Amino acid sequence: MNARVVLAYSGGLDTSVAIPYLSKMTGGDVIAVSLDLGQGGEDMESVRQRALDCGAVESIVVDAKDEFAEEYCLPTIKANGMYMKQYPLVSAISRPLIVKHLVEAAQEHGGTHVSHGCTGKGNDQVRFEVSFRALDPSLEIIAPARDYAWTRDKAIAFAEEVNLPIEQSASSPFSIDQNVWGRAVETGFLEDLWNPPTKDLYAYTEDPAMGNAPDEVVISFDKGTPVAVDGKKMTVLQVIEELNKRAGAQGIGRLDMVEDRLVGIKSREVYEAPGAVVLIKAHEALEDVTIERELARYKRLTDARWGEEVYDGLWFSPLKRSLDAFVDSTQETVTGDIRLTLHAGTATVTGRRSSESLYSFDLATYDTGDTFDQTAAKGFVQLHGLSTQISNQRDREGGFPTGNEKYAQ
Amino acid sequence: MNARVVLAYSGGLDTSVAIPYLSKMTGGDVIAVSLDLGQGGEDMESVRQRALDCGAVESIVVDAKDEFAEEYCLPTIKANGMYMKQYPLVSAISRPLIVKHLVEAAQEHGGTHVSHGCTGKGNDQVRFEVSFRALDPSLEIIAPARDYAWTRDKAIAFAEEVNLPIEQSASSPFSIDQNVWGRAVETGFLEDLWNPPTKDLYAYTEDPAMGNAPDEVVISFDKGTPVAVDGKKMTVLQVIEELNKRAGAQGIGRLDMVEDRLVGIKSREVYEAPGAVVLIKAHEALEDVTIERELARYKRLTDARWGEEVYDGLWFSPLKRSLDAFVDSTQETVTGDIRLTLHAGTATVTGRRSSESLYSFDLATYDTGDTFDQTAAKGFVQLHGLSTQISNQRDREGGFPTGNEKYAQ
Amino acid sequence: MNARVVLAYSGGLDTSVAIPYLSKMTGGDVIAVSLDLGQGGEDMESVRQRALDCGAVESIVVDAKDEFAEEYCLPTIKANGMYMKQYPLVSAISRPLIVKHLVEAAQEHGGTHVSHGCTGKGNDQVRFEVSFRALDPSLEIIAPARDYAWTRDKAIAFAEEVNLPIEQSASSPFSIDQNVWGRAVETGFLEDLWNPPTKDLYAYTEDPAMGNAPDEVVISFDKGTPVAVDGKKMTVLQVIEELNKRAGAQGIGRLDMVEDRLVGIKSREVYEAPGAVVLIKAHEALEDVTIERELARYKRLTDARWGEEVYDGLWFSPLKRSLDAFVDSTQETVTGDIRLTLHAGTATVTGRRSSESLYSFDLATYDTGDTFDQTAAKGFVQLHGLSTQISNQRDREGGFPTGNEKYAQ
Amino acid sequence: MNARVVLAYSGGLDTSVAIPYLSKMTGGDVIAVSLDLGQGGEDMESVRQRALDCGAVESIVVDAKDEFAEEYCLPTIKANGMYMKQYPLVSAISRPLIVKHLVEAAQEHGGTHVSHGCTGKGNDQVRFEVSFRALDPSLEIIAPARDYAWTRDKAIAFAEEVNLPIEQSASSPFSIDQNVWGRAVETGFLEDLWNPPTKDLYAYTEDPAMGNAPDEVVISFDKGTPVAVDGKKMTVLQVIEELNKRAGAQGIGRLDMVEDRLVGIKSREVYEAPGAVVLIKAHEALEDVTIERELARYKRLTDARWGEEVYDGLWFSPLKRSLDAFVDSTQETVTGDIRLTLHAGTATVTGRRSSESLYSFDLATYDTGDTFDQTAAKGFVQLHGLSTQISNQRDREGGFPTGNEKYAQ
Repeated sequence: MNARVVLAYSGGLDTSVAIPYLSKMTGGDVIAVSLDLGQGGEDMESVRQRALDCGAVESIVVDAKDEFAEEYCLPTIKANGMYMKQYPLVSAISRPLIVKHLVEAAQEHGGTHVSHGCTGKGNDQVRFEVSFRALDPSLEIIAPARDYAWTRDKAIAFAEEVNLPIEQSASSPFSIDQNVWGRAVETGFLEDLWNPPTKDLYAYTEDPAMGNAPDEVVISFDKGTPVAVDGKKMTVLQVIEELNKRAGAQGIGRLDMVEDRLVGIKSREVYEAPGAVVLIKAHEALEDVTIERELARYKRLTDARWGEEVYDGLWFSPLKRSLDAFVDSTQETVTGDIRLTLHAGTATVTGRRSSESLYSFDLATYDTGDTFDQTAAKGFVQLHGLSTQISNQRDREGGFPTGNEKYAQ
Repeated sequence: MNARVVLAYSGGLDTSVAIPYLSKMTGGDVIAVSLDLGQGGEDMESVRQRALDCGAVESIVVDAKDEFAEEYCLPTIKANGMYMKQYPLVSAISRPLIVKHLVEAAQEHGGTHVSHGCTGKGNDQVRFEVSFRALDPSLEIIAPARDYAWTRDKAIAFAEEVNLPIEQSASSPFSIDQNVWGRAVETGFLEDLWNPPTKDLYAYTEDPAMGNAPDEVVISFDKGTPVAVDGKKMTVLQVIEELNKRAGAQGIGRLDMVEDRLVGIKSREVYEAPGAVVLIKAHEALEDVTIERELARYKRLTDARWGEEVYDGLWFSPLKRSLDAFVDSTQETVTGDIRLTLHAGTATVTGRRSSESLYSFDLATYDTGDTFDQTAAKGFVQLHGLSTQISNQRDREGGFPTGNEKYAQ
Repeated sequence: MNARVVLAYSGGLDTSVAIPYLSKMTGGDVIAVSLDLGQGGEDMESVRQRALDCGAVESIVVDAKDEFAEEYCLPTIKANGMYMKQYPLVSAISRPLIVKHLVEAAQEHGGTHVSHGCTGKGNDQVRFEVSFRALDPSLEIIAPARDYAWTRDKAIAFAEEVNLPIEQSASSPFSIDQNVWGRAVETGFLEDLWNPPTKDLYAYTEDPAMGNAPDEVVISFDKGTPVAVDGKKMTVLQVIEELNKRAGAQGIGRLDMVEDRLVGIKSREVYEAPGAVVLIKAHEALEDVTIERELARYKRLTDARWGEEVYDGLWFSPLKRSLDAFVDSTQETVTGDIRLTLHAGTATVTGRRSSESLYSFDLATYDTGDTFDQTAAKGFVQLHGLSTQISNQRDREGGFPTGNEKYAQ
Repeated sequence: MNARVVLAYSGGLDTSVAIPYLSKMTGGDVIAVSLDLGQGGEDMESVRQRALDCGAVESIVVDAKDEFAEEYCLPTIKANGMYMKQYPLVSAISRPLIVKHLVEAAQEHGGTHVSHGCTGKGNDQVRFEVSFRALDPSLEIIAPARDYAWTRDKAIAFAEEVNLPIEQSASSPFSIDQNVWGRAVETGFLEDLWNPPTKDLYAYTEDPAMGNAPDEVVISFDKGTPVAVDGKKMTVLQVIEELNKRAGAQGIGRLDMVEDRLVGIKSREVYEAPGAVVLIKAHEALEDVTIERELARYKRLTDARWGEEVYDGLWFSPLKRSLDAFVDSTQETVTGDIRLTLHAGTATVTGRRSSESLYSFDLATYDTGDTFDQTAAKGFVQLHGLSTQISNQRDREGGFPTGNEKYAQ
């Protein structure tokens, strides 16, 4: 059987050259698949045509913006998905969706292989390949950059050799991945951790120091899903786009972090994710009002695990699905409005209202109308601390530490 | 035996009136103990004298600023102590220290009772009483506000009745607790969750929208302890004070949150903690560079539990001590410098350097000098995802979900 | 409005005397509600009649055996519910069901109060009262034993005073709670932790040292639910009863433990739960075959939390519900047979087979037919350990511990 | 530089043949290192001599029994180390110690390579290689069985070819690893999960059905370390040996499980670990008496993580070290005696006594002498359940689930 390679095609130099390369290497055909995830840039029809020009036998373009927003960004909002407490999983959640469409294309067009352009030291190879095998282990995987040390220089040489109809753009120092959920940038001078990011790194956000006037926004959620901005009904995609624009104008959502990659190394990453950062902040603030304490405490743990699982390329794993079941069960009552002030790099929650609020003015107020039974507290405090009291009594008598020793730094 | 009541004395109206009240109620003597925790305001000598004027037989003032910084704030930095991911435990860590000094005073001066002014619906009663019983369960506890419904109005009436030598200040709408680690504000109109905070709530921070010029600061840590600012050696207390000043000037560290109290209700709280917020952010950024991935992931879980334990009044508990042992064991290598830009409400990390850095340029770089063995990745990815692959294969064959179904919102 | 007190009625002396006592105390009527949870002993009709004889205006008996098995025992099996790794929550899961029926009776019969016979130092008061307030906070709770120090001696005296038509049984040294899921025994001489249990404590299990011949049993599960024993289809209730008989005959399921009560003290408890122990063991063995590794690891954590939550009286809590959602999502594929040998106190799993097994002979075998790709392992091991390698390299160079120092005991 | 390969040498056929094989393959010398970990079998001097006969230039035998007991088994006892709740990590804790001695030998004798006989589908390759790289990443690793598909048949053929002076034993169907902490057996017919283990698999334990008379034993611990059996002071090694003998005679410690290997597959394993199982059971029972509730609950989570970390080959990892710090901090008070009855496959705890007991007869008793303040309980229960009460009230009003719906199986 002839090889038919389904390639994750971006339209850039590397994957364009990969088309004839894969064809030559396998002696088979190449099918290019490109997804519109809201990354902007050139129009998708040009991308589609370029693949054909480079020799693809099929070139498929999928408008996956809404699917991405509703089935990948939305679960991330519900799980407050932030790897290392800060990174909203921009690239991590796009890979499984790309894979899903590649596998569908392979199944429809008789694909035998799938291919991606990732290197062997990043996370994306993991996300691609674990997802490929999770969805269809019969497809063989080709990763030229990793398995054949296929570098940019080799790609350019090969492009010339086969007379590829693409212009070689001036070499950019940046390695960029972007979609509607955010933008990731790596570049040489950031590899020195003491260097600050420079202004030209950013495209989704303005400089927070610009001094724009503050912008007040109200985001409405229904069962954990953002459904309106300033009272105007929107799809999830539209909410993200609106907040990208408004939070981006205020310089919100810039991240500069040292990240623990799954392959075992630390790397410096710069991200922009204005909409994502604001949405998760608002969602958390609404959860604070609508989710009971112990459930909220436990959800913070599972949220963190969810983020690690997705970061580690395990979107399609059994654990991820069961964590989703947990998360989904908590979102029934996460309904209401969050008001935020967007300004100079910061989104500040200034108000919340919810028909499902667990906040009770009558129980909380120190003014007239207080219904809290303070007499219950005395006994509560006594038994809440009893096991500590007994344990510390034992420790004192036995000469063990009880915690009020001088702290040894 | 005559009662001798050791009272946590703030110098304010309520605890001043409590002196003759407790004396009358128990037929015994009252010993006032006041701690300087960097709360500012009037000088401690005036506070000391006022207690005597109100009838205390002893009035003890303790300068506990350094002790507070080194033995209470510092462990909070090391554990990145943030309740509900945001509140740096301003009041929660001061109560156990106050208790420690009250118990010492009781043991030195023959105290039989201890007393505090907290109500029955807050967290502080728990922190006081659990700590009292943890350190000396033989002391009887009196909580007039809770157990005798001792209100401000009653206090004022009683003050007049006994001719107490204190001026009745104009009634403030704010209930405030503050120390060098931060400031907590509650007030009536915030009890409507939709009301934004007003400017007069704040004292430690300027308005972030003021437009001050950005301020760059370098914080140096040694084994998790902040030891210098901009290269100038400082005590922990001095570091906190310096950052309170500089981050406060930029409006950093304002919090407006709905909080899950231990007594079972939700409450609206406004905090200011400029130094705390910057220090924990810097500390986390340094940990990101100096702590190995799996340890860092686990530490995030124990950090969260540490924060809950301390929030819940269990500073002196056995679990807190063992969590400290875990945390301390991770701090050996948390040494280095973090550079931040403070501006308009945000502290942004822009650089890090450390002799103990786990970041390896040679492994991370995509440029010349790369030493990462990419050939290892292929097998790694394969086995990393193998259990998911097998499980999803089974699920597909059995008609069970595999995660690429349409997401049911 | 006249009080109408709905009482959890067991038929024993204490709750029988409580009927006239509650009536006298509240000046209202008493409605007795008794549940058949498979506890055996006298027939429920006698129990029902006795309540009326003691003055109840209504006496309701509910056959809740199947409901208990299917809605309380079954989730416990699915969550492998074992408090402190050993106690299968015998009393803990019965209380919420009793409460459910009391609340229903109150709502049907105009009840204004609910009442239980628990003391103030046990867990059951918590389970009763938290459940009452979770299901209907408008009902007032009366706990005579705790709130009015209503002791057995007072009960007997009162019974004589009001000429209650009940015989006073010879005082038993045992305090017993039992249902089809197990049996709990407390008694004075066990309060010395060094005393071993005596033979007369046990009723559900034979002496394991008796020397009965081993008994082999096959339990079949469908999606986590036990559905057959030795190939014979059964309800959950029947499965539990059958295994109680057969495992009980082998002395399986005896527990002697020191338990951490929610009220802050440790207590010695003896339990018998032959069916529960065997079912959970079999269920875990089937999960080991049918649940993917990372999901299984995480489920062990949530299972433990589930057990704590239920033990702590929080059956009806939001966290318990979301943990159930997690657990349920894992049970889809927990289908198959487990064979055990029951003998002399031990249930030993000796075989498992499942249409949903994740065990692959081809991958696991060391014989002919091995399909595992061993070449993948080299790279896997290398990257699996890379972050540790880098961290230990740093530690060695910096003189920090790397774990191969002599272990300091 | 000539290669000098330090080989983990067991004395068996495979590693004996590996000596000339490695020598030929690398053109260098082979140094054999053998550890006595209490595995029994032939005397270590014969093992040492055989390596020399096979061509090793050095043959080193280390009596590591006490080191293994005190620095590897003891931390496992303190952490109640049980992978998947049952496997006491028999092989998992021996590998890092073997590696430690190999690395020491390499550093002393100028070794350039290290070598082990593990295949590419098991856990032990991971434990060896991660530990090698953790302790000395400069050593090159050779794994002939995995990297050169070096099978038993090839080994035998090579042995004949090079005229190796070893007898070829009758091929055993068992693959065995054993040391003083336990014994692991794999064999072909167990690869069918429905086959029960046969009697000839076992060597450390008698048949539990044999009907030996029960054996009562008292184990004494000091700060978590077992120090005496029946009052007789012993080293940790002696305690394990004594309990292996006595518990083994009762058939205790047999395990038959399906295990989640780190490489992603499930495998059937049979273990015997009589001493380990009894020691951990006794240790847990003593912790139940001497460790405060919340610390004990948290320790169960960290214990589970500790077991996974060690199983996964990460003995020398930073996380393992910090988990040890946590565990060690809990053992200060784990001092006292546990009495068990060993009989017919089961170890039953029947008594415990401890100078550091947290059990208080006065608080626990229902008889005269009760000092527990039951009046505190009412308020405790009320606030313990308040957040659930409020949340369920909201859910009822909003038509959301509250947990007393019929359980959907």
